[in-house]
Amino acid sequence: MKTPWSHRYAQRTQRIQSSAIRELLKLTEQPDVISFAGGLPAPDVFPVKEFQEACQRVLSEHGPQALQYSTTEGYRPLREMIARHTARYGIVVSPENILITSGSQQALDLIGKVFINPGDRLVVESPTYLGALQAWNAYQAEYITVPLDDEGMQTERLEEALRTSPKFLYVLPNFHNPAGVTLSLERRRRLIELADHYGVPIIEDDPYGQLRYEGDHLPPLVVLDNEFRGHNGAPYSGNVIYLSTFSKTLAPGLRLGWMVAPEEVIKKLVQAKQGADLHTSTFAQMVAYEVARGGFLDRHVRFIRQVYRERRDAMLHALERYFPEGVRWTRPQGGLFLWVILPEPLDASEILAAAIEEERVAFVPGAVFYPDGSGRNTLRLNFSYMSPEKIEEGIKRLARVLERFVARRAAAVAR
Amino acid sequence: MKTPWSHRYAQRTQRIQSSAIRELLKLTEQPDVISFAGGLPAPDVFPVKEFQEACQRVLSEHGPQALQYSTTEGYRPLREMIARHTARYGIVVSPENILITSGSQQALDLIGKVFINPGDRLVVESPTYLGALQAWNAYQAEYITVPLDDEGMQTERLEEALRTSPKFLYVLPNFHNPAGVTLSLERRRRLIELADHYGVPIIEDDPYGQLRYEGDHLPPLVVLDNEFRGHNGAPYSGNVIYLSTFSKTLAPGLRLGWMVAPEEVIKKLVQAKQGADLHTSTFAQMVAYEVARGGFLDRHVRFIRQVYRERRDAMLHALERYFPEGVRWTRPQGGLFLWVILPEPLDASEILAAAIEEERVAFVPGAVFYPDGSGRNTLRLNFSYMSPEKIEEGIKRLARVLERFVARRAAAVAR
Repeated sequence: MKTPWSHRYAQRTQRIQSSAIRELLKLTEQPDVISFAGGLPAPDVFPVKEFQEACQRVLSEHGPQALQYSTTEGYRPLREMIARHTARYGIVVSPENILITSGSQQALDLIGKVFINPGDRLVVESPTYLGALQAWNAYQAEYITVPLDDEGMQTERLEEALRTSPKFLYVLPNFHNPAGVTLSLERRRRLIELADHYGVPIIEDDPYGQLRYEGDHLPPLVVLDNEFRGHNGAPYSGNVIYLSTFSKTLAPGLRLGWMVAPEEVIKKLVQAKQGADLHTSTFAQMVAYEVARGGFLDRHVRFIRQVYRERRDAMLHALERYFPEGVRWTRPQGGLFLWVILPEPLDASEILAAAIEEERVAFVPGAVFYPDGSGRNTLRLNFSYMSPEKIEEGIKRLARVLERFVARRAAAVAR
Repeated sequence: MKTPWSHRYAQRTQRIQSSAIRELLKLTEQPDVISFAGGLPAPDVFPVKEFQEACQRVLSEHGPQALQYSTTEGYRPLREMIARHTARYGIVVSPENILITSGSQQALDLIGKVFINPGDRLVVESPTYLGALQAWNAYQAEYITVPLDDEGMQTERLEEALRTSPKFLYVLPNFHNPAGVTLSLERRRRLIELADHYGVPIIEDDPYGQLRYEGDHLPPLVVLDNEFRGHNGAPYSGNVIYLSTFSKTLAPGLRLGWMVAPEEVIKKLVQAKQGADLHTSTFAQMVAYEVARGGFLDRHVRFIRQVYRERRDAMLHALERYFPEGVRWTRPQGGLFLWVILPEPLDASEILAAAIEEERVAFVPGAVFYPDGSGRNTLRLNFSYMSPEKIEEGIKRLARVLERFVARRAAAVAR
């Protein structure tokens, strides 16, 4: 139905589109579908009991404060806890460098609001996080892409991109969403050198950094950049804005993320956030703080790592066992996702339709993660949400669909 | 300290400024200041016990769901409850017409994102809600203003404004923030006729509609517009987008508001919200639903009305008793605020500085609510947050400061 609003949309809405992922999430509601599509944490790891206790404590000790308006910057004890936690990784920040956001998605939106003019170029990985594209399309950004391989962003291809005078460089160094790969230490250092040489600041998006299942922790870009500038162990240099979240370690339903940025940038972001939602839920912040404090968060992260490692292994094992020849995939050292590359010219979105209809199994076709719409022969699999048994069964089902598509292609080639 | 980010701000940030109200809120933290500055609900009316019970029920019955990601549109039982509630006022909407937002502030931001191109004209009241200006300045809106009087927007001045081809008309018909006035029924009808004649759709912002302390409930514009179009008691015509919130009836710390809009507009808003914060806290939505349902919200609103009526009366009584000659104020029938007009050329921001320093009492100078920076001789007083005793004492203090300024002005005139 047309209404008086129909011809009044802003030009930018042409670039605001519904997320394929969000639409696909609806499929996960059908109980017979095994979905590897979402990016959902396993509900069985949520610390429900601890949340119950925290709600009681927060409401009986600070009830009126927890339900009242609060400052845009965020609940101070939570910001202090994040600052202490950040210091562990070798970087000295104060609570004034930290802004609590309504999930990491809001951090991306506020960055767009504060930094992106229409037509600004941003250097991003290809593929990259869909939520960042969704946030920044609304600010009419343009994207310069740098391809990934098993060691993350191909830094030998980065220099060309940095020569285009981009506004900033956006990177997901750990357990990349969607690709599951991790940026090597050598490339981290190279990326920082190059960004410095071309005077391009960095947005580091790190939602999964704590969820490493094997190998050594690698220092985040924000720390390496500090070292590079001779601020080793000293105050934060401010070149890298760092984003993270409680969505994967506590619970996404709270919508709690945070940003580390220079104080002057935090002030601008705070002004933008005042206009966007005034502040993040006081109650959610106080409850999260109450759950996380006193070492619980660290213990809980160790437990999550164990659960997800088992699920990742179940998926890798099933892929080895069931997937047809010619299909490749990444071996993530952490995070929630792995990435599958099909032989060309197979199209993952055609396969998705068949997978849902014929085998009741779902995933996300990879093309949505490419700003230029390429990557049609790729797909993303989530391994955190389903039990190991369901993962085995789901990969078996998906393998059957792939077998048919691969065989059909071989037949076409043979003709 | 300058950082690599300092010269990279988007042009729109020139229009994003810190809210004077938010800065002033910091004053309320000093215990000896009596602050009429904020727009805070009284913490003593928060239903803390009901929240405790609701948290327990939600977490024990739906724990994993409450902590998980959820749909952008919002928790369906909450949207159904809002639809039923809206129907009581004589307008038939379905849950598909309702979007849950992270406070009403986010509704304003999403409207900006979906509708406002840089340079678009918006018709607003003068004074108008500061949060709307903050949200829409970021989208580089221009404002065409229509002055208020004791019956709300002066509709005889509206026609001229509507002739400028504005994108929409933004109105706060009930217990206006900041002015405390209510749009009369006659003017509501006239406004709808005029908006229809000039083909300008309406945003109706109604955070306080339920908080009426005297007089008869007036139908919202969204209902009158439906009647005007012959949709009486029938489905929603879609010309008026209606905004409301749980901030004043349950608790602002949850950050829960909602919008009623045509389905096609809701779809666009949902896409914009996906990029802005994915969805509003699942836990906050489920807890609010659990607190509100079964008739509690209605009973609680009756209780709040009683408390706030008493505070409004305390303020009106103290103003009569203590304020000097020549100062005028509005007599709100509901809401949280009243509006004071000082004799020209007194400047409320100069008086604020003196009020805080000399008498430890605070308010908001009115000029911030005028898009054109006029209204220097006006100020806003909140009467919901302080007890009747504090209100009496605070008005007495403020009257002393005003006396001095009024006397000085009289002396200057006499010279």
